[in-house]
Amino acid sequence: MLPYTPGEQPAPGKTVKLNTNENPYPPNPTVVAAIQNAATGALNRYPDPVATAFRRAAAEALGLPGPEWILAGNGSDEILTILVRGFVGENQKLRLPYPSYILYRTLADIQGATWEQVAFEDGWKLPAAFGNTPDDVRLVFLPNPNSPSGTVLSLEEVESLAAQMTCPLVVDEAYADFSGANCIDLVKKHENILVTRTLSKSYGLAGLRFGFLIAQPHVVSELAKIKDSYNCDMLSIAAATAAISDKTWLGDVVAKMNATRDRMTDRLTQMGFDVTPSYANFVWCTHPSGQHHAMYEFLKNNQILVRYMQFPDWGDGLRISVGTDDQIDALFMLLESHLKNL
Amino acid sequence: MLPYTPGEQPAPGKTVKLNTNENPYPPNPTVVAAIQNAATGALNRYPDPVATAFRRAAAEALGLPGPEWILAGNGSDEILTILVRGFVGENQKLRLPYPSYILYRTLADIQGATWEQVAFEDGWKLPAAFGNTPDDVRLVFLPNPNSPSGTVLSLEEVESLAAQMTCPLVVDEAYADFSGANCIDLVKKHENILVTRTLSKSYGLAGLRFGFLIAQPHVVSELAKIKDSYNCDMLSIAAATAAISDKTWLGDVVAKMNATRDRMTDRLTQMGFDVTPSYANFVWCTHPSGQHHAMYEFLKNNQILVRYMQFPDWGDGLRISVGTDDQIDALFMLLESHLKNL
Repeated sequence: MLPYTPGEQPAPGKTVKLNTNENPYPPNPTVVAAIQNAATGALNRYPDPVATAFRRAAAEALGLPGPEWILAGNGSDEILTILVRGFVGENQKLRLPYPSYILYRTLADIQGATWEQVAFEDGWKLPAAFGNTPDDVRLVFLPNPNSPSGTVLSLEEVESLAAQMTCPLVVDEAYADFSGANCIDLVKKHENILVTRTLSKSYGLAGLRFGFLIAQPHVVSELAKIKDSYNCDMLSIAAATAAISDKTWLGDVVAKMNATRDRMTDRLTQMGFDVTPSYANFVWCTHPSGQHHAMYEFLKNNQILVRYMQFPDWGDGLRISVGTDDQIDALFMLLESHLKNL
Repeated sequence: MLPYTPGEQPAPGKTVKLNTNENPYPPNPTVVAAIQNAATGALNRYPDPVATAFRRAAAEALGLPGPEWILAGNGSDEILTILVRGFVGENQKLRLPYPSYILYRTLADIQGATWEQVAFEDGWKLPAAFGNTPDDVRLVFLPNPNSPSGTVLSLEEVESLAAQMTCPLVVDEAYADFSGANCIDLVKKHENILVTRTLSKSYGLAGLRFGFLIAQPHVVSELAKIKDSYNCDMLSIAAATAAISDKTWLGDVVAKMNATRDRMTDRLTQMGFDVTPSYANFVWCTHPSGQHHAMYEFLKNNQILVRYMQFPDWGDGLRISVGTDDQIDALFMLLESHLKNL
C-alpha cells in the first residue's frame, strides 16, 4: 500500500509556499492569546473528551441548534478517518468524484476497503449517476468547493444527489468559507448529509490540527464511539473556541484572500492560462503550452512552491494557493519572465 | 457496540482527582514556555508530519540509535489505534491479559476484530500460554506496569513470552517511568517487541495528547502509512520535545511521586487494606470488608474521586492515583473515619 503524500514541506526559510492551500496570514491574535493562556492551565489533566466549549461556540457561530450537532477532531483528516472507519467495512466501497482529493482513496486502502471514482463532466458538473449508489457503496465524499478545481456544486445539486443516495454523503467543506455558501441547512433537513470543516484554511491554523463534523445528533453520537477518548488537546480546544467565535476576523481575512484570488485569476488569464473560476483559496490553471511541470520546476528553483498535479486519463496543471499580495506579485513576475522564454 | 468509558472528569473545581492516574503536579515550566513560544510561530502552516524534532530528542534521551525508531502520535491512544488498524483485520484477534486496560477491547470492537483475555495467575504472573499465539491472534498487548495492579513482569519474562509469539507483542509502558525498568533494549533485539509510551503520566501532560511508539525502523515506517498525515500539531511537538529533553525534571517528579506511592502503600496496609506492591503512579487495593463501592461513594461525596473497578469473574477494588501529599493526607483522614464506622 502506498501512503498518502501530502504537499511538500520545505524547511522553514525563504521558500514561498503556494502548494498546500494554507492561509498566508498569521492567525487571529485572540487565538494566540488563548493558547498562551491555556498553556498555564491544568495541562496535567486530561482534556474535555468531547470539546464542549468549542462545540457550544461553533453551534452559536454557525447557527446550529446545539453542540450535539458537532463532533470535534484532530484535524478534519481525523474526522474523515472516523467516517471511513464508521461507515465502510473491509471489501465495501466509498465513492468520490474525479479529479478530487485523493486522500479519500488512501483512507479506503488503509481500511481494507475499495473506492470508485466518478468523473466530473464538462464545466465541473457531476453526472446524476454520482448519486446512484449500489448496495456496496457505503459512503460518498464530495469536496465542495472541490480541489483541485475550486469549483462548487449548488446546494440544489447537492440536495438532489443526496436524495438519490442510499448511504451518507459527506460534503467536505474545507474551503467553504471562501465560497460564500455551505450545506449546513441541508444537514438540518437530511440525516444523510454530513459536513466536514477544518480550521486549517480560512482560520489560518493548519499547525493546530483542528477540524469538525456537522451532522444530525444521532449520527454524531454514533461516530463519537469510534474516536480516541481524548482526541483533541486542551490547547487546540481553547484555540479553536477563540477562533470560531470571532466572525469579524474570519470575514476580514476571507475578503482579503478572495480579492487576491480574483487578481490571480485575472492576471493568469491575461498571461494566457486557462483559469477555472475558483470559490476556494487556490486556483487551478492550465496553459496551452502544456509546460506545467517545467513551470513548476522553474518556480521551485526560484523559491516559489506551487502544486503540480497530474491526474491519469485526465490531464495535468498547476494548483496555486492564494498567498499574500507580495507573494503573488513575485509569482506573476517569475511566470511572465518564464513565458517570454517559452 | 459500547464505547470505551474513560474515568470521570468532574467540572474543574474542588474535586481531588485520584481516578485517572494523571500527574498531580503542573508540567515542567520549560514545557509551558515552549508552548507559549510556539504559539507565536507559523501556526498557519502545516506541522512537520513526522515530528522530527521530537523524535531526535527522544532518541537521544532514551538511548535509541536514531529518530527512525520512533513514531509520534496524538496520545498513546492514537498509537494503540494505529497498531490495531495495522495488525488486526476484521475477524482476526488481539490478546490481552486480564484484568488489565480494557481500551484494547474497545479498539478491537471498533475494528470489527475480536479479542481474547488470558487471566493473570496468582501474584500477577502470566501463564506461559500467554505467549502461545495461534494463527488468528495478530497482536498481543501487555501493559507493563499493568493497570489496575501496578505490577510488572521482568524483562526476562517479557522476552520469553515474545520469543514464543508468532505476532507482535506491544508492551504498553505508560507507567514505566515509575518502575525503574523498561523494554527499550528488548526492542533493539527483537523486531516483534514494540513499546508504547505516553507523556500523560510521568511528564504531567495529559492535556496535551502526546504519545509515541518505539519499534524497529521497518516496523515504524510501515505503521507510519496508517497515521493521519499531520497527526501531531506544532504546539504539542514543541512541548513534547522540551519535555523529553529534560531528564532532571522527570527524575525529580518521579522520585517525589514514588515516595508518595510508598507512603500510600504503607498507610493503606495499616488501615487493613490488601495493597498490591505498585510500580506505577497508582495503587490497587482491596479491603476485607469488601465495601469498595461504598468507599468510592463516600470519598466522592467528600470531593475525592478514586476509581472503583469491577472485573467480572475476578473481583473488585479501588485504584487510587498518586496525588500530592496534601491530597493523599486528606484521603487517609477520610478513609480512616469511614473505616471506623464500618
